[in-house]
This record gives sequence, C-alpha cells and structure tokens, in this order.
Amino acid sequence: MRSHYCGGLNEAHIDQEVTLCGWVHKRRDHGGVIFLDLRDRDGIAQVVVDPDTPEAFKLADSARSEYVIQLKGRVRRRPSGTENSDMSTGMVEVLGKELVILNKAETPPFPLDDYVDVGEDVRLRYRFMDLRRPEMLNKLRFRSKVTSYIRNFLDGQGFLDVETPILTRATPEGARDYLVPSRTHQGSFFALPQSPQLFKQLLMVSGFDRYYQIAKCFRDEDLRADRQPEFTQVDIESSFIDENTLMGIMEQMVREMFHDLLDVELPTFPRMPYAEAMSRYGSDKPDLRIPLELVDVADLVKDVDFKVFSGPANDAKGRVAALLVPGAAEKLSRKQIDEYTKYVGIYGARGLAWIKVNSLEQGAEGLQSPIVKFLGEDVAMSIMARLGAKDGDIVFFGADKTRVVCEALGALRIKVGHDLEMLEKTWAPLWVVDFPMFEDDDKGGLTAIHHPFTAPSCSPEELEANPEAALSRAYDMVLNGTELGGGSIRIHDPVMQKTVFRILGIDDEEAQNKFGFLLDALKFGCPPHGGLAFGLDRLIMLLTGASSIREVIAFPKTQSATCMLTQAPGEVDDKQLKELSIRVRKQDSDAS
Amino acid sequence: MRSHYCGGLNEAHIDQEVTLCGWVHKRRDHGGVIFLDLRDRDGIAQVVVDPDTPEAFKLADSARSEYVIQLKGRVRRRPSGTENSDMSTGMVEVLGKELVILNKAETPPFPLDDYVDVGEDVRLRYRFMDLRRPEMLNKLRFRSKVTSYIRNFLDGQGFLDVETPILTRATPEGARDYLVPSRTHQGSFFALPQSPQLFKQLLMVSGFDRYYQIAKCFRDEDLRADRQPEFTQVDIESSFIDENTLMGIMEQMVREMFHDLLDVELPTFPRMPYAEAMSRYGSDKPDLRIPLELVDVADLVKDVDFKVFSGPANDAKGRVAALLVPGAAEKLSRKQIDEYTKYVGIYGARGLAWIKVNSLEQGAEGLQSPIVKFLGEDVAMSIMARLGAKDGDIVFFGADKTRVVCEALGALRIKVGHDLEMLEKTWAPLWVVDFPMFEDDDKGGLTAIHHPFTAPSCSPEELEANPEAALSRAYDMVLNGTELGGGSIRIHDPVMQKTVFRILGIDDEEAQNKFGFLLDALKFGCPPHGGLAFGLDRLIMLLTGASSIREVIAFPKTQSATCMLTQAPGEVDDKQLKELSIRVRKQDSDAS
Repeated sequence: MRSHYCGGLNEAHIDQEVTLCGWVHKRRDHGGVIFLDLRDRDGIAQVVVDPDTPEAFKLADSARSEYVIQLKGRVRRRPSGTENSDMSTGMVEVLGKELVILNKAETPPFPLDDYVDVGEDVRLRYRFMDLRRPEMLNKLRFRSKVTSYIRNFLDGQGFLDVETPILTRATPEGARDYLVPSRTHQGSFFALPQSPQLFKQLLMVSGFDRYYQIAKCFRDEDLRADRQPEFTQVDIESSFIDENTLMGIMEQMVREMFHDLLDVELPTFPRMPYAEAMSRYGSDKPDLRIPLELVDVADLVKDVDFKVFSGPANDAKGRVAALLVPGAAEKLSRKQIDEYTKYVGIYGARGLAWIKVNSLEQGAEGLQSPIVKFLGEDVAMSIMARLGAKDGDIVFFGADKTRVVCEALGALRIKVGHDLEMLEKTWAPLWVVDFPMFEDDDKGGLTAIHHPFTAPSCSPEELEANPEAALSRAYDMVLNGTELGGGSIRIHDPVMQKTVFRILGIDDEEAQNKFGFLLDALKFGCPPHGGLAFGLDRLIMLLTGASSIREVIAFPKTQSATCMLTQAPGEVDDKQLKELSIRVRKQDSDAS
Repeated sequence: MRSHYCGGLNEAHIDQEVTLCGWVHKRRDHGGVIFLDLRDRDGIAQVVVDPDTPEAFKLADSARSEYVIQLKGRVRRRPSGTENSDMSTGMVEVLGKELVILNKAETPPFPLDDYVDVGEDVRLRYRFMDLRRPEMLNKLRFRSKVTSYIRNFLDGQGFLDVETPILTRATPEGARDYLVPSRTHQGSFFALPQSPQLFKQLLMVSGFDRYYQIAKCFRDEDLRADRQPEFTQVDIESSFIDENTLMGIMEQMVREMFHDLLDVELPTFPRMPYAEAMSRYGSDKPDLRIPLELVDVADLVKDVDFKVFSGPANDAKGRVAALLVPGAAEKLSRKQIDEYTKYVGIYGARGLAWIKVNSLEQGAEGLQSPIVKFLGEDVAMSIMARLGAKDGDIVFFGADKTRVVCEALGALRIKVGHDLEMLEKTWAPLWVVDFPMFEDDDKGGLTAIHHPFTAPSCSPEELEANPEAALSRAYDMVLNGTELGGGSIRIHDPVMQKTVFRILGIDDEEAQNKFGFLLDALKFGCPPHGGLAFGLDRLIMLLTGASSIREVIAFPKTQSATCMLTQAPGEVDDKQLKELSIRVRKQDSDAS
C-alpha cells in the first residue's frame, strides 16, 4: 500500500511519484493550501495539498489529528527558506494528488507531542497511544535491534537457542513463585520459572555445549521502581569452559554491541574482587563514573570516647568509613547536608557525621563539624591526613554494622556524585569477582550469595571446614552502578553439590525431593560448565537512557502488578475455578 | 578447555596436537591398546591410548560409558583398512597423550545407542540422557537454526521483535485458559495468553508497522498427540498491507528457508478456496501429495431406493461422495477394507460402502460390492463413468451429513494414500483461502471460523444481511496435510468489529467489557493490518520428520500435562496458597 516510509524521503526522491501511509501528526491551513505532517514508524514527511486537486483537498481539509491516510503525490524540493534542517525529510515535501482516509480517529486522550504532564496511569491505560510517540517507539525499536544483535552474536559463537518450559516446578531462586493450578492434577500447581537455571544446566548435561535463550522469568515480589513481575533475561550457559573464557566472550559481546549500535568504544573491563568493591565503594556494583571512595578509619577511632565511632570500630562486624568529597564545602548547604542525613537513614544509618574542612592550617579550629570535639584534634587531623583532605572539602562518615555503612555511604557516594555533577565518564563497566560463597541469613545460618549451584573455588573438604571464608567462582558484569548480568561456574560434582546443600541446611532428603533431577543429572556424566544471565530490560533501559524499566517494555505492569490497559488481573467465573479445584478464600478469613 | 570439537576432525588436522572434551561413547580394548569413541555435540572421534603413555593408559582403562574426559593428543591417519567412511571423522584418529577424567558417570538408565525399546516415560524421566542421543540433539539444533533463520529473515524485512505479556487477561481464542492467582489483588487472576493476538493488533495501532515474536502460548485443553499445554508460535503482523502481499512475504520466507536449510526447492504455493478443498479433499488442510480426490455423486443417487445414499443426497446438509483408488483391487484385502470401515467410524461414519471394479465390460456383474444391487446397474455404471473408473480400481463411498463425509473420506484418503504408498511428492504446500466467516455452533448460533477479529470480504451491511454466506480474508498455509500457519487481514473499523461481535451473540456491553481496550484502540486511528502465526513446534516436526511434537521440544509434557523430569505440577505449602487467597477444594466436593 506504500512505496516509501514517510521518514525515508529525502532529496534523492525529488520528482518521484510516491505513495505514503501514516497518521496525520499535524494539519494546518496556510495560504489557501493544506499542510499535513504525515507520520509513520520512520519519521514525518510534509505533505501539501492544494485546491488544484479538489477531491484530495476536500479530504485533506476534513482530516484531523491521528487520522490514518494513504497519499499519492510527487516529491519536490521545499521552497527556499522553508526547509527544516531538524528533520531528515526537511528539504523536501510531497505535493499530494490522491488521498484516501483509511480510518478516522477520535480526539486522542492526551496530546502525543507534549506529554510531560500526562500521568503514567493514563499513558499505561492508553498504551497504544503512548507508544505512538516517536521516543517510545524508538526505544522499543532499539530493543528489537539489541535482541537481534545479541542473538546473532551468540549464534555466531555456536550457542544454540533452546526453549525451556514456562509451566514448571518451583525453582530455587528464593523469591516468591507465581503459581498455576493444574486442572488435570487436582490440588497440584505449576510454578512460573524465576529463571531457566536448572534447565540450562540439564542441557549442559545433555551435551548441548553452548545454550542461550532470551527467556521470560517471573517473580511475585513487591515491586520496586525497576522491577516487573515478568522480566526478560538473556540466559547463557556453556560447557568445558572456565570463568576467564566465559567472561571474555560476554565482554566481547557487550563491547561489540556498544561499538556497533551506539558507536561507543568501551575500555577493557577491569576486574575487581568483591571485597575491594565493598571496601572502596560500599557496593558490589560500584558506579566507577564517580571519583569518590570510601576510606576505612576504624583503626584511627578505636580509642576515642565517642562511642558512635569507637563502638563499631571495635566490633568485628562493624565498620567506620569516611567519604571525602573534594571541593564540596562551598557547594553543599547545611540544608543539603540535613537532607543527606535523611537519605542515609533510608539505608539504616542513624545519623550522618560530617566535617567541613575550612582550613587545615588551623587544626581542629579549621574543621567545622559537630563531631570534632568528640574525636579530638589528633584523631581528626590523622583522618584528614589519611584522606588527603584539602581546604574546601567535606568528609562524611559512616559508623555502624558493616552492611549499614556500606549501603548508606555507598548510596551517599552515588547521590553526591550526581548532585555535584562529578561523573568523569559516560560509561564505566567492570567485572566484580571473588564473591563469598555464603552470607549470614540473620537466622544463625548461611545463605548462598549467588545460588546453591555456584561452584566454590575450593574443594568440598575446604568448603565444609570453613564455609564463611570460601569464595565462589561467580562474576557480575556491572555498568554505571547497575548489575547488567551475573553468573558463575557451576558445581558439576555431586559430592560438592551435596556439601553446599548441607551447608545451606538442606539435608539429603530435602535436596533429593527438591532437586532430585539435578542430583541425578550430576551422577550421569555432567561436564564442567558455567554461564551468565543478563537482565535485558535493565540493559535496554541503560542503553536508551530511559528513566524507568516501564519505558522499555511495550506493555508493562504498574507497581501494584496491574496492567492498566487490559485491566489484568481480573475476576473469573466460579465455573473455571471449580474446574481447577480451587476456591477463593473469603476476605479476612484465615480458616482453612 | 578444547581446541577442536570431536566431530570436526578430518584429514586436514593430521599431525596437529588437539585437545578434545566429551563423553566416552564407547570404550574397547583391542590388541593391547584402548580405543575410546569420544562424543561431543558435533560428532564422534576415535581416540587410541597405548601403554607407552602409562598414566593416560591407566585412566583410559578406567573410563566407562558416559564418563566426561578431556584428552590431548595428536591427530593421525587411521591405519589402512581401518577407515570408517560412515563417520565424518572416519579417516583419522587421535593418539591420546594426556587424559583427564573430568567427571564420572553411573551406568545410564537406558542405552543411548539402541533405544527402540525404551518407553517414552523413561526417556522423559531422564530427558537429560535422552537428549544426549545425536538424533535428539540434532533435532533441537535444527530448531535453533530454524528460529535464527526466521528471525533474520523477518529482521531483514523490517519486522520488529516485540515482547508481549505472559501474565495477562483471558484472551478470546476460546480454549480454556491457564490461570494465575494474583497475590496483590485478592480473588483476581491473570490468564496466560493463548496467543498475542490482541497485543499485536495494538502494536499496529501504535504504528509499529511490522511486528514479530517467537511467542509462548498456552491452552489448558485435553491433549492430543500433537498438542502441548505450552507451545510456540511465530507470530507476525503488518500494517498497510493486503493479503496478497502478506502471503507473498510468508511464502518467500518458507521457500527460502527450505532452500537454504533443506536444499529443497518448493514450487509456488497454489491457492485453493476453502470450498474447493472441502469438496475435492474433504479437508481444509488437504495433503496434496496424495493423488486421490473426493467426487460428488449425490445427483446420481438422489432417486435410488437405497436410503443410505438417497437420504443424504436429498438433504441440503448432506453429502454423497466417492473416492476412487486406482489399482487398489488387488492390493486391498477384504480384511483391510473391514479395517477401513472401522477407521472411518472414528469420524462418525456409520459404514463404508465400496465397489471393487473387476470388469467394467460385464456391467453390474463385473462390480463386486455389497451395494450395487441397491443402486441398480445404471446408477452404478454412471458413477463409474463419472469417476473414470477402470478395471482393478476400488471405489469407497461416504453418505452422511456433509461434515461426516468430509472428515471420514478425507481421513480415508490420507490413510489409503499412505498404505498404498501413493505419495507423488515429498513436499506439497498450498494456501487455503476464502474461508467462510462463520459456521454453525450447533446451538443455533454462529461461531467464528478463525477469530472474531478476522475481516470479512464484504461491507458491514452485507455481512449483517447474510452472515452465513460471507467469506473472510483469512488464509492458511498448509504443507503435506498439516496447517503450518494461519492468519487474516483484521478488522480495523470499529463499526465492522461491533457488527461481527453482534453476529456472534456478543452484545455491546459484553464486547466493551471483554475487548474494551481493542474497541478503544480501533477508534483512535487504527491502520489496515493483518498477520499470521506459524505453529513452530509443528513446523520443526515436519521439517525434521519427527514422529511427535515431543521429539522437537527439549522438555515437553506428557499427554496428561505432566513433566516427568521435574514432576511438575507439584504440591505447594498451604502458606503459599494463603498468600494467594486461594484454597484447594476438597475432592469430590462441589459445595462452594
């Protein structure tokens, strides 16, 4: 029905007869002729219809915003002085000769060209209109380009695209599962997968050697801004491979993608041990664009009377750290510091100690701070020395349980970095490696930092002897403070797998019950293997600079897990529920 | 960990040092040396380990079937007379020098090289072993190749890959939905999509112009041999397109795929109206490899006393048809004809009349048949004349409701064609077009033959005046008697859409309630559009010659919708059900 896309017209088409199809983006009368901006996926072309073609003129005159039309005409150069260099089609226009109105349109629920004030609820309710906006359509078009790119890269590297089930068994990621009642097995339920983890490991056992899948995953959790109940994962696994080779292929993929799709040359990704990342940045996904670091000062404040500092300094599980912000003294008002105090409170910090460095020459006198008097001049000055502080800097402190200090100062570091526009790079990728195998589960036990199938970098005997010291063969790819993907070399030895389960408090019976098919598989000749999964939605969000994950998903759900467009979830007939042998519990009734 | 795949070795590698990884396919002692057939994804290489390398020899000696090993050695030409031309690696072998046992294996639950007698249940229970068999792995590898091929083709044609939701609202395909209880909206349920139909139409409304997705779809139906609760669809939609253009692109895709992946040149697909397909083949997906056709003879038997024939012949909803099988008289025994009688009974036929043509010259005397005496010689001979019967042929008859005759004789046509090895072609594709819009729903109403969004080829007024006569703009791609894909030009006019709903007995309120977002979308400038969906599983099954859809799905479910491997569906804690506000009904209790 068309010869060209609107957005594809340029001076090469001058004097050609073209047929365009699209939406009336704008319509205006000017000097007795009608101008239509005709929009399609590729852009906007200016169409002129004059009274010399009375039929077309009449139809053009009746057209309104978002009418769908087909137009035949001849491309011509725009009159001198009316060119629009902001548009790719801005040097030409189409003199319309025949016009067909393919469909009419009621007045849109919100304007498509100026949506700043449109609430997200309305945008999601009329998502089919919202997606008409070129910036939305282009984000999803870019997403399609990225998935093609990734697929072609992985195909080229010999990875096979294999589909794994959506209706499956509860998987071990530990989040809440979405359940699907079975009709044929009364009282039984499928679970939607939180990831294809076990299936991809089984494919390695089967000898597929290299697997990938762009897979839908599901978690029924309370949603934060960047989470969705269903999300998409680029899921990858390979056999007979070590972490260096796998990380190499993945890094190559991301670097080539940045080069080919964004024209950006990423540096070789540095590798940083988890312990270093936590120590210097308070985060296992440090944003290296920001030139600020946490510096430990516990040893300097061990003996001060100020319990807020000396307490954590003398606690094996505590941490006292400082964050030096160069030149911030002038830029941060007292009010802003108070706001930062509130901000770190979100992460559990009970306050935010700070020192404004007015004049180091004056010693304690030159340090403006509520805490210097508690620290004493010697300690304060030795902290300044360690930090390399200069006049005009501000130092923030965190003193608490290690986790609280890392989270609070780590978050503050990012916030201050952004507030003071300190970002030194556009893109700062890295690998975080050498994660611990386990962490406290706060109930006296241990929990896996990655998942229970991650291989440790020691023997089963060493692992059992000192699980808390064991490091895993896991790796996370981090970009600009966001975890793009994470993975590990997996356990391929059934003895090691059972050891890990035991350390996690899963006895042999429970292990067999929950993961019997995996344990079986390990017994029958499982190759060494490992893999990685990228969060596709977050990757696209980062690549497109979108402000929310919902901007890069065609039909997202709200934070209450509702689809505003289709009004899902919805009520169903009792007949359906009967077929499934289930019943809705009465509200506020707990009886079974 | 490897330098080459086992299956990739050939004479070009002679004298090279290689490192291989894989599974011990077979191990044998011969003349004091050990031969290992080492298997990986690409094939099998013969490895020789001799006592000159005692360490490797000892390990090779200890290796058992399905052990995972890494082997370093030198490629050499096999001694003259020991080459194996059946294997791509059969001219060479590897003299092993270093061997590492990467993992051991217990004795497999069934032999991998001779599985004819292994029940499918066992194969599915140990799917990770079953998939090791080269024929299984190769089918799934081919599947990966096909999906890549399709994606690259569609990318090249400007189709955008867009993901649509899995957690959504009940969709209108009419099969039973899988439901997912919502935790945050007590008593509400998501449905898993039976297809992305409405979402892809919305993407057209949004101006995506061309969309595709390889999408998981779900139907909770009792399963036939070639159905799965979750299945995969290549889902395609385009705007500003008519059926000819769309069918052209799809045909091009399939023809190029056959050329590039199978080295098969498909002919241009003929187009056959639905009415012709039903008349000549008794099926809307005729298998054109078989040179047999149904021929109507109702006019010839209208007046015979034989009510079995004259009844349907005089019934507007009846049909009397004959199927001539050339040269079958000698090939089909009386016993086989009795079996065919049972076979058509499956399709509702109450018997199978037949005539064996022994000698046309002898008139009725030369026709061996239980029914000729009821028809009379004139009628019998005029039927023979119409069919162009010759001595040695057999004619089968169907006389009943049109639907029964089509189904019974249509199925018999296929069966006889296969039994007598009459297939004239390897591949016989076609398009079936000009479907009716509606058919009887057997409750006095009408039901949509495709779905309620299919455009008719007439105006809303004409449609309303005579819905039963209306044809749709739908098309099915058929290959060898299997529907590969089906689609249609969709309704883009809200008036037409409401008319169709009305004819289907869906009043405006119900329409708004169920499909309000679609009706909304049609109002705001919906372009003309249409699309198609291919059943990927079935396509792969056909392309690989697999006997069941389960052979081309990595982790399929049984016919009772169970995963033998993971034992899904399974029981869940009552705590989980409480969170979801649901409860399992007690068995055999209907009370609510």
